[in-house]
Amino acid sequence: MKIRDLDEDGFLEILLKGLPTGRNLIVGPGDDCAVVKAPGGRELLLLKTDCVVEGIHYLPDDDPARVGRKAINRAISDIAAMGGEPHYALVTIFSPPEVPVAYWKALYEGLGAAAERHSIGVVGGETTRAPMKAVSVSLVGKVESQRLLLRSTGKPTDRLFVTGTLGGSLAGKHLDFEPRLAESRWLGAHGHARAMMDLSDGLASDLPRLAAASQCGFVIDSTAIPRNPRRTLHQALTDGEDYELLFATPPRLVDRLRRGWENAFPKLRLTEIGHLCEPGSSFSSMPRGFDHFFSLPANSSP
Amino acid sequence: MKIRDLDEDGFLEILLKGLPTGRNLIVGPGDDCAVVKAPGGRELLLLKTDCVVEGIHYLPDDDPARVGRKAINRAISDIAAMGGEPHYALVTIFSPPEVPVAYWKALYEGLGAAAERHSIGVVGGETTRAPMKAVSVSLVGKVESQRLLLRSTGKPTDRLFVTGTLGGSLAGKHLDFEPRLAESRWLGAHGHARAMMDLSDGLASDLPRLAAASQCGFVIDSTAIPRNPRRTLHQALTDGEDYELLFATPPRLVDRLRRGWENAFPKLRLTEIGHLCEPGSSFSSMPRGFDHFFSLPANSSP
Repeated sequence: MKIRDLDEDGFLEILLKGLPTGRNLIVGPGDDCAVVKAPGGRELLLLKTDCVVEGIHYLPDDDPARVGRKAINRAISDIAAMGGEPHYALVTIFSPPEVPVAYWKALYEGLGAAAERHSIGVVGGETTRAPMKAVSVSLVGKVESQRLLLRSTGKPTDRLFVTGTLGGSLAGKHLDFEPRLAESRWLGAHGHARAMMDLSDGLASDLPRLAAASQCGFVIDSTAIPRNPRRTLHQALTDGEDYELLFATPPRLVDRLRRGWENAFPKLRLTEIGHLCEPGSSFSSMPRGFDHFFSLPANSSP
Repeated sequence: MKIRDLDEDGFLEILLKGLPTGRNLIVGPGDDCAVVKAPGGRELLLLKTDCVVEGIHYLPDDDPARVGRKAINRAISDIAAMGGEPHYALVTIFSPPEVPVAYWKALYEGLGAAAERHSIGVVGGETTRAPMKAVSVSLVGKVESQRLLLRSTGKPTDRLFVTGTLGGSLAGKHLDFEPRLAESRWLGAHGHARAMMDLSDGLASDLPRLAAASQCGFVIDSTAIPRNPRRTLHQALTDGEDYELLFATPPRLVDRLRRGWENAFPKLRLTEIGHLCEPGSSFSSMPRGFDHFFSLPANSSP
């Protein structure tokens, strides 16, 4: 069996089976971040590592500052997906030796500006020679236990919401998105969500993950999906790299959520797209979403 | 300017200049790990990321279990270099799609066995497609403030020690070394060392780094360098990937160090190789050590 015969979830499941996870792991592989107890303390840490590879996650001609921003914003979005806040970043770059220093300097500046915007310290770096360019970012964040939002805690009848609009990220948004950190912190602080994740692979891939983790089915109203201008429903479901939040809210809290949201984030659309239900009743004809590992021919764009 | 025109230290210095480091950074780039305050707590965390690339840090024919062990042991060695203990690991693999799943499963098993040996939880993983194989490991550890050992805290007259024997790592030791975690914890607990690092690039590259960080010069006795069997002095100084500890001990503590060491680690050689001195008086004719980024032709072995 080759890894191209598996999807990423299946591949990771095989790899991680039987590995030691330690006694202080609260939430392991399968959610957006790992949640662990701080060594020697009681706080909850969020740990995430994420990478972008040239020719897969971005194009050789893309502005390096925007690539750097994307590299860190993807990981920030995963911290946001758990209701947490990012604190520290470690950055590894892979590079052929003939790349100009100015390229990497520009990339680091874009990355650093995004870090600064979210009060993240870039505390370490590594460089290594490789046949292609790539950037790997590891983030350490924290989350208060009462604000922690998992994929696995949704319940049948919870209503499903997405922030922003979906589809067409390749037109530029995949480089320039803003991770929904403020929105996520607000949701956690007010208890308006019961389960959450970020949309990285497209709603058609990600919603089934949240529902499965919560042992639920789901129903969505395809006419309600908020699309970016000139995008088809199929694109909104499967393009991926939206980096919006998908969350589940108990029915009794929906009115309060809506009113609070309008006050707090008047410029960001919040859309109800359906609800969780008992397992076995999913609308399962959704097209399959973007899987960066397996869906693309070599050297194609995202 | 291309990055091949710089060494890794110089390249990182350019990249990291002007980046936000945050208010809770205790020790930033330039030591073996970053030292930060735990988010929301007072403990000190150690953060490290490290990667190995096929054709650069290991050969295509190398046993994947040994490669996995090396990938995590390198980062563990950096945690040891600070006097700390590792707690959590995140692992990213880069792979062409045609690689058999069994290859990565074997690599993860080697990595997992090393993690288990040191009570490290492998709490997250990521996979991405790439033109070559590579493994990146991020570790989160902790260190008690009184045990923290930096490169920068040596003083003139401190005596210099190395553990084990040096040189010839390519013959296999670079895959099979044991990070000196127990030894490092013991040194920190007893206050026997004042500055420390691990030897990853060879004594000829690493000792000048420790001395410069401590604003000292150094004197070494070339006849005292502990060599592996059939290795020349030049190899012992420059082959790199020894993953032994190099540390500085105040003269008044040397007798106690020696006696304690013999009891605690009777099987591991400890050798005094020289001392730190006032800056400007270094023995500076040492050959230059291994720099994995710049010293090797493409696709050569480590």
